[in-house]
Amino acid sequence: MCLALGEARAAGEGGDVPIGAIVARDGEVVAAAGNEREAAGDPTAHAEILALRRAATTLGSWRLTGCSVYVTLEPCPMCAGALVAARVDRVVFAAPDPKAGACGSLYNLCVDPRLNHEVEVVAGFAAGESAELLRSFFAERREPLAE
Amino acid sequence: MCLALGEARAAGEGGDVPIGAIVARDGEVVAAAGNEREAAGDPTAHAEILALRRAATTLGSWRLTGCSVYVTLEPCPMCAGALVAARVDRVVFAAPDPKAGACGSLYNLCVDPRLNHEVEVVAGFAAGESAELLRSFFAERREPLAE
Repeated sequence: MCLALGEARAAGEGGDVPIGAIVARDGEVVAAAGNEREAAGDPTAHAEILALRRAATTLGSWRLTGCSVYVTLEPCPMCAGALVAARVDRVVFAAPDPKAGACGSLYNLCVDPRLNHEVEVVAGFAAGESAELLRSFFAERREPLAE
Repeated sequence: MCLALGEARAAGEGGDVPIGAIVARDGEVVAAAGNEREAAGDPTAHAEILALRRAATTLGSWRLTGCSVYVTLEPCPMCAGALVAARVDRVVFAAPDPKAGACGSLYNLCVDPRLNHEVEVVAGFAAGESAELLRSFFAERREPLAE
């Protein structure tokens, strides 16, 4: 999660909401990405989507069986759906997202037995550090009240 | 939808599950894509994701306000979440997907007032033609519908 937080920090320094993700398999990092929605002008360029795409390129398969994804914020519906689509084994997220989280907050798409794959969800690892990173990002950008 | 079905047919001829999508704005086609999961080895390369990414590149913004997406199969959770994330106005789909559909079948992520955007859903346009395309694809390959 330390590496994912590093990706999140780098995304924030580039002007994107600071969220980072890592894909690992057998204890090795396969792919890493930060959120690039603003930098790339791509609505799908969330950290998880980019990390999954990079992992598939590295591993030579869209099936990411045996992989775990570490992400600094609870995945949104798009990203939770992507974790299922990529057949990853596990997602570990730091801060919960009560407004859009789809791994336990609003939905839990990862553990729906009606879908053709289930992803184990582990929550709360380094949640405070991730939440503080997001809080300070938005606090810095909040415009002061007009006098 | 005729153009989306053309993209679906081309995807099927390339060995991918035949699903196609179009993004349109003000009556003009902005982007088109077929499913490329197998061809690209990318778990996120569903037709809708690719079409949204291409539309964002063409329009120079990740916010696809004013856009409608036409897709031959009801979007899965990842793709329905992407439609919300991209802020499109409307999705029109052909065949329903009772196994993974997230625009009315298993979920309806597009019209959840808790999320920060809602997408109008129109269903059933050219459903028979799309369903037949999928049925014949899987019949030829004797594989279950699993995308």
